[in-house]
Amino acid sequence: MSDLVTKEQLDQVLAHIDGDIDQAVERLRTFLNIPSVSTDPAYKDDVKRCAEWITNDLQSIGLEATCHETVGHPMVVATDDSAGPDAPRVLYYGHYDVQPPEPFDEWDSEPFEAALKDSPYGQKIVARGAADDKGQLMTFVEAIRSWKAVHGTLPVRVVILLEGEEESGSESLVPFLTEHKESLQADTCIVCDTSMWDIDTPAITSRLRGILYIEATLHGPTHDLHSGGYGGSLVNPANALTKILGQLHDDKGRVQIDGFYDYVEVVSDEQVDQWNSLGDADAILLESSGAKATFGEEGYSTLERLWSRPTCDINGLTAGYQGEGAKTVIGCKASAKISCRLVAHQDAEQMQASLINFLESRTPVGCSWEFKKFGCSPAISVPTSSPWLSKAKDALTDIFPNPAVLIGTGGSIPVVGEFQHILGVDAVLIGFSLEDDLIHAPNEKFEVTSLHRGIRSHAAILHAYGSSSD
Amino acid sequence: MSDLVTKEQLDQVLAHIDGDIDQAVERLRTFLNIPSVSTDPAYKDDVKRCAEWITNDLQSIGLEATCHETVGHPMVVATDDSAGPDAPRVLYYGHYDVQPPEPFDEWDSEPFEAALKDSPYGQKIVARGAADDKGQLMTFVEAIRSWKAVHGTLPVRVVILLEGEEESGSESLVPFLTEHKESLQADTCIVCDTSMWDIDTPAITSRLRGILYIEATLHGPTHDLHSGGYGGSLVNPANALTKILGQLHDDKGRVQIDGFYDYVEVVSDEQVDQWNSLGDADAILLESSGAKATFGEEGYSTLERLWSRPTCDINGLTAGYQGEGAKTVIGCKASAKISCRLVAHQDAEQMQASLINFLESRTPVGCSWEFKKFGCSPAISVPTSSPWLSKAKDALTDIFPNPAVLIGTGGSIPVVGEFQHILGVDAVLIGFSLEDDLIHAPNEKFEVTSLHRGIRSHAAILHAYGSSSD
Repeated sequence: MSDLVTKEQLDQVLAHIDGDIDQAVERLRTFLNIPSVSTDPAYKDDVKRCAEWITNDLQSIGLEATCHETVGHPMVVATDDSAGPDAPRVLYYGHYDVQPPEPFDEWDSEPFEAALKDSPYGQKIVARGAADDKGQLMTFVEAIRSWKAVHGTLPVRVVILLEGEEESGSESLVPFLTEHKESLQADTCIVCDTSMWDIDTPAITSRLRGILYIEATLHGPTHDLHSGGYGGSLVNPANALTKILGQLHDDKGRVQIDGFYDYVEVVSDEQVDQWNSLGDADAILLESSGAKATFGEEGYSTLERLWSRPTCDINGLTAGYQGEGAKTVIGCKASAKISCRLVAHQDAEQMQASLINFLESRTPVGCSWEFKKFGCSPAISVPTSSPWLSKAKDALTDIFPNPAVLIGTGGSIPVVGEFQHILGVDAVLIGFSLEDDLIHAPNEKFEVTSLHRGIRSHAAILHAYGSSSD
Repeated sequence: MSDLVTKEQLDQVLAHIDGDIDQAVERLRTFLNIPSVSTDPAYKDDVKRCAEWITNDLQSIGLEATCHETVGHPMVVATDDSAGPDAPRVLYYGHYDVQPPEPFDEWDSEPFEAALKDSPYGQKIVARGAADDKGQLMTFVEAIRSWKAVHGTLPVRVVILLEGEEESGSESLVPFLTEHKESLQADTCIVCDTSMWDIDTPAITSRLRGILYIEATLHGPTHDLHSGGYGGSLVNPANALTKILGQLHDDKGRVQIDGFYDYVEVVSDEQVDQWNSLGDADAILLESSGAKATFGEEGYSTLERLWSRPTCDINGLTAGYQGEGAKTVIGCKASAKISCRLVAHQDAEQMQASLINFLESRTPVGCSWEFKKFGCSPAISVPTSSPWLSKAKDALTDIFPNPAVLIGTGGSIPVVGEFQHILGVDAVLIGFSLEDDLIHAPNEKFEVTSLHRGIRSHAAILHAYGSSSD
């Protein structure tokens, strides 16, 4: 089909998308109502059911779709080669698993009963996974659906890979990519797990932070003790853990792990100026987080901190009694979930070892550590000079009120690095979520406007990729 | 009856106790199976049911017993004046409420299905509240039961006060004591919430630490945030909380709250020597706690630390994600339950204010604190010169293999101070639990041997108190 792609064909597809948007919203709600929490074994059957649902949906569009079992959660692969052997092949990546919904009591509606609510931009869909990543992956699925519905074929060859372990360490990803390297070959790749600059300004993300994530449990006595009978006479693991974790940062927000900043890339003044000219990042941050102040490593702007500086964050603390009221207990253990966001040139494995060494070198007398590791991947830069990126940028600019911009992201999308290493393909990172979408938090949402424009954008990108280069 | 009390009468009672011990164990198990967790509102009806059960039991013995409603949990009062108006009147205090059973998965049997299991001393009763305080309060209840069963009357007049809020701040205690001051008048008071030195060595406790207990919650953003999208750009309350709590102690174990040691009593060398001659306290501590090392304020022995030095302990930590696996979240708040054990001459209210000031003076930029207060009471010393204490000490020595000793306790029994202030009566603190009874912890237990000797001891103390002074 690639030689036949005309602007008129795209307009027909866009019209179909506009007429089908209510159905697209309903399909997304059905998808969201399956609680595909990958990190918690209690949801294992739901994750599988979710994989099967999206596999069936892709088949109903007319794609060849298969739900592949793995040692963890299923991988869904769908292909369409109707554009013919000479058409470029585009790999689309998304993930159908979601973060845990806790804390339940902070949700205004059920996390797995997707609700349509009013928003300043029209309507929003509220559910766990609405923006991360079910709503996002449906932008290209719906674009493909409309192309197929209107024209029966696509402007390019397509292979879709949907993962079910993105929120839980992606254990099966590398083995799967390695095993299916041939069938996943593509000329370019689109990853849909990123944000826009704002509701009217689409963005392509070219820098991603890496991540390492561990759980560290400090063990002391063999059982919980009465704080009256024992307090002051032996190490309280909760006291000791806070004393150790409290040393992770100095007063200027610098991480104190050995060698943490040794290889951190120094970003050019030009690059920093470009970021800082994008808009009032502090205002956006405060508005979307509800925080009263920005805070971070001294000497850097908010966008520099988010896009070019590494972090160390405590993502969970658990010790002693956590119910209502008072319990005079010394817990026998105390634990923390700790992650570091990493930037260009930091060695992820080495930083993980250094963090563990930081903790071990401070082991209190008579105590011992237990460590669990939940993933470790370096930061990634995507080439900004490729024609795939330029075409996508132009297509986004055509669809949205404002031109598309190039940004970084503080988050991590390890799959982008694996695509580079294993499949030899660079990703174009295009996403339609907003800073205030409450990703990973209660009341996560996705704007219907963003869904709609996202679908239109992917239809336009398919068109652009299927047209001859100038 | 007091003039008629003879050694033979006591022997008859002791024989009755020995013959009735299996039934006493069964009564205690029934009592333990009522989950009277006072601090958790979910158990409110169970606490009431427990109060009614013990009220009925006291009535069945032949006492006048009443279950009094309060704004919190009921107070049970039972009296027996059959010894006549000239007999001394003894006030007995215990509490029928218990600590929360969590963490459930660390119990080897159900916390509220009292189990009889083998122990090095014969058998033990395993259940929440077995030693703290249901098993303990049944020692005097059963002694009174046997005196009444054998002789129809008691050697002294008796008033029993059983509280249902000891583990949750004793909100109703002071109003109740004030309102019922007249009917609770007594010549002496026995409080049954303390330990022995070891299984064969009974003890009377003459020093108790005080306590203050707060919950401090640090609030940051208005909702949980993705650690990728926000990490490094604003205050993570979990990071900040550990940084603040990590400053509570210096490297030598000294509490850094302002003025914390200003008025702490310096214990005489003589007293310290007496404590340190009791036995190998370090070995007992390590054995009963399973800890691999002692640790505490530099320059003090374990018994000095426990009986004469104040502490600050984190009793609970809660922040971010606490489920299985990894969640890349920045929690919008982080909280800690914090208590201080206080010693003679520290002002409890002032120390509570000083702890809160310690936290507030370190408030991170853009964050705010929320505080809950769960009780605040000073340390207490009991006069060791009274004839009531001497008689009890002799009676204990008669029943046990080893002579009774005078000890301190690291725990807090605020009611002892209220009895002094409101009723004007000094308490004699006699208890039969052991260091390894796992009070406040999973698998709490009470030795059947301790229950049995405890009942016999109270029978002997009743006899001693009813006999004319020499």
